[in-house]
Amino acid sequence: MAKGLTSRKEDYSKWYNEIVEGADLAEHSAVRGCMVIKPYGYAIWEKMQQQLDKMFKETGHTNAYFPLFVPKSLFEAEEKNAEGFAKECAVVTHYRLKSNPDEPGKLMVDPEAKLEEELVVRPTSEAIIWNTYKGWIQSYRDLPILVNQWANVVRWEMRTRLFLRTAEFLWQEGHTAHASKEEAIEETVQMVNIYAQFAEEFMAMPVVKGVKSESERFAGAEDTYCIEALMQDGKALQAGTSHFLGQNFAKAFDVKFATKEGTQEYVWATSWGVSTRLMGALIMTHSDDHGLVLPPKLAPFQVVMIPIYRDEAQFEAVVGRLKEIKKELEAKGISVKLDDRDTQKPGWKFAEYEFKGVPLRLAMGPRDLENGTIEVARRDTLEKSNLDQNDLVNKVSHLLEKIQENLFQKSIDFREESSHKADSYDEFKKILKEKGGFIYAHWDGTTETEEQIQKETKATIRCIPLAGKKEAGKCMVTGKPSEQRVIFAKAY
Amino acid sequence: MAKGLTSRKEDYSKWYNEIVEGADLAEHSAVRGCMVIKPYGYAIWEKMQQQLDKMFKETGHTNAYFPLFVPKSLFEAEEKNAEGFAKECAVVTHYRLKSNPDEPGKLMVDPEAKLEEELVVRPTSEAIIWNTYKGWIQSYRDLPILVNQWANVVRWEMRTRLFLRTAEFLWQEGHTAHASKEEAIEETVQMVNIYAQFAEEFMAMPVVKGVKSESERFAGAEDTYCIEALMQDGKALQAGTSHFLGQNFAKAFDVKFATKEGTQEYVWATSWGVSTRLMGALIMTHSDDHGLVLPPKLAPFQVVMIPIYRDEAQFEAVVGRLKEIKKELEAKGISVKLDDRDTQKPGWKFAEYEFKGVPLRLAMGPRDLENGTIEVARRDTLEKSNLDQNDLVNKVSHLLEKIQENLFQKSIDFREESSHKADSYDEFKKILKEKGGFIYAHWDGTTETEEQIQKETKATIRCIPLAGKKEAGKCMVTGKPSEQRVIFAKAY
Repeated sequence: MAKGLTSRKEDYSKWYNEIVEGADLAEHSAVRGCMVIKPYGYAIWEKMQQQLDKMFKETGHTNAYFPLFVPKSLFEAEEKNAEGFAKECAVVTHYRLKSNPDEPGKLMVDPEAKLEEELVVRPTSEAIIWNTYKGWIQSYRDLPILVNQWANVVRWEMRTRLFLRTAEFLWQEGHTAHASKEEAIEETVQMVNIYAQFAEEFMAMPVVKGVKSESERFAGAEDTYCIEALMQDGKALQAGTSHFLGQNFAKAFDVKFATKEGTQEYVWATSWGVSTRLMGALIMTHSDDHGLVLPPKLAPFQVVMIPIYRDEAQFEAVVGRLKEIKKELEAKGISVKLDDRDTQKPGWKFAEYEFKGVPLRLAMGPRDLENGTIEVARRDTLEKSNLDQNDLVNKVSHLLEKIQENLFQKSIDFREESSHKADSYDEFKKILKEKGGFIYAHWDGTTETEEQIQKETKATIRCIPLAGKKEAGKCMVTGKPSEQRVIFAKAY
Repeated sequence: MAKGLTSRKEDYSKWYNEIVEGADLAEHSAVRGCMVIKPYGYAIWEKMQQQLDKMFKETGHTNAYFPLFVPKSLFEAEEKNAEGFAKECAVVTHYRLKSNPDEPGKLMVDPEAKLEEELVVRPTSEAIIWNTYKGWIQSYRDLPILVNQWANVVRWEMRTRLFLRTAEFLWQEGHTAHASKEEAIEETVQMVNIYAQFAEEFMAMPVVKGVKSESERFAGAEDTYCIEALMQDGKALQAGTSHFLGQNFAKAFDVKFATKEGTQEYVWATSWGVSTRLMGALIMTHSDDHGLVLPPKLAPFQVVMIPIYRDEAQFEAVVGRLKEIKKELEAKGISVKLDDRDTQKPGWKFAEYEFKGVPLRLAMGPRDLENGTIEVARRDTLEKSNLDQNDLVNKVSHLLEKIQENLFQKSIDFREESSHKADSYDEFKKILKEKGGFIYAHWDGTTETEEQIQKETKATIRCIPLAGKKEAGKCMVTGKPSEQRVIFAKAY
């Protein structure tokens, strides 16, 4: 399969699509902009879900489920939020089909089944959830509410790309309610930290934590925190966001609580989410011109075993031994697939699993069986070696850790090489054109300047880094004073 | 809380609603017929999901995800299926809202953003999935496909009830593709067996496995297998279905495969699903006039601990000891909630957790602390006893097992008492009117007779039991010959 793969240099976007489809991760569906997530791709998403869900629960959150549909009148209650999503809303207007009298066997929308009020398919759930929270919150005793939802959402995008931008996508959305501003901000920061930890420890993807500029903020938020990653083509990808919503939704839905002191106050809110877009980020961060590369912590199976044999007797002997080893590996918590199909040749299998990014490949033939050895190939470095079967479980375990670390280190190195400072607008444009990547530059803090830069260069402010050091400087465009460099990049 | 609970005798339906809402399981939303599943209710659903997902994976299935929307032209391809669901379809017709010029701050559907082809919000996914499988299947080597999806679906119901019948609900739907009829039937039967095993072992809910009569069959199926449970009001509840779809969808979507012999054949299909309706079944099977009763295997927490104290020092001492016990229980895999809130009195907490169906309550006061004892209350029998703290983990573990068994046995006993044979139509009507329950009777196998019975008595054929013994008899209505008794009941 890898033979046919377009290289990153040749056409990065084509390379990406070929990996997504060729590695059986996802494909386009008959519905414009909607994707089918195939079993192998979904298994990676499940691993992500399990880990994130664990981290959410460890920090006191519980899951719940809210309706898919939002009545238009609720949707428009928080005006900024509504305005921000109005152009991307799929709208249900009817609730019945009927036989089409003009075309036997065909159906048509029944005009008599028109809804009195249109229903928006949720692009995000603040509206329906805050309308619900109104019934849950009376006093400070009812706070905080720390709820998360795993769901599908729909945003009608005109230009879609598998995982990165699809009309329907899967995500989680946390929606919390608090008695004080401080507590809500603390929650917002806690969640962006959790996202960063997940990205780095599990996806092996380094991220910058930061705050969005006003124009990149979530519609309806007071502040949007984010994690930004850098892809191999030098473009940035926003991988997760956590919003401090202030009292905007509480005011829109009239959600007040009685304080300990007996006064009535509006509730403070946050929301935070990551989506199947993370799949796109994962693919683009590690994969190479041989196909997908997966970090062991998120691989559906970490080890694939392939028997080499010439006849039935050899097959039995080799597969017998591989089954023993499989059991030992699984006992140690390592996930293993033994591909003992006789419909495909070993060479075909080698290519298949290399393309699918399985971290470690173990191959064993009759000679290995005699010698007590086994061939191990790492997907990240493509290195092969012959190992003694003795103490194999610990060796495999150790290798998987090394692969996880190596992928992370490689991505950090790449990001460091691709991060530049620009001190003038000309320098900025030059770097952007020649190298791309993260460009740290001074900006005067105004939306006007930001828009001008975007218009002239297509770069946007990815974030104001949380860990960025204060440094007096001058905006590269207007020369006005700036306190800190912000990160510019072209972005997905 | 239980004080206010309507009794089952008084008003069964009201009792049910009060439990669902009072135990914080679910509530109605602002969207007609759609529910909010609250954290405590969702935690039970998560337990169900985890167990079912495990059972599906152990039998070789993997998860995937298919689009929420089905283009009308695909939806109508399998005519029987389309006809069966047409009247319940929510339809997306537009993809954008815009500002309403007549009402500042309000939105309206943008008439210019009308879709060329309407999109049906999936009521079930056979159409979109078989349209996808067409691209996945060329040869017998691509079969079987054993895929499951966890998703939301929408069926526009006119009369809704929380969990039992809602416009949107959560479910899993398995969709498999096979090279032979035999293999597809085997899969269909395997899945109904898995559902039965899940219902009995985890929900502690006895079920009858059977086959549906033609008129109760899934639209587009050749045969529908089901599990039927009996609720405490004598009404039946269909708790899960598994469909043998024959080649109907393969023909509708032209999905053929090359056999080993080189011929082209249509693929054989199954689909199977259970939904959040199981929550309704669980609630109605075990709960009593004191509130919800949960089987330990599906309870969000199996044990609740409540400290009894008069002052700060007692609180510290008692809670300190409870925390130690909690750790010991958790180490054994028992889930525990320690409610050490000082905003609520112990009596309030007792009532709260009784209503919420927590299987075991442990209460400890200063005297218990001195004596090394603890009070244990079982939710199923409401029995209290004082246990020695010595070896408490094993005692709790044993009690949880006993509760699980007791709930199952009680439900079996109830079903046995509520199952009757009727040998004449008069006897049938009398039993139905006086006792309800499952009525085993002979039927001539025709849809006409079935419809007559339903019209005259409101009872339907729940299933033709798989384990029912062959027994020559005469249809209670027409006197025509019958080979086996079938189960009639009024149903949810």
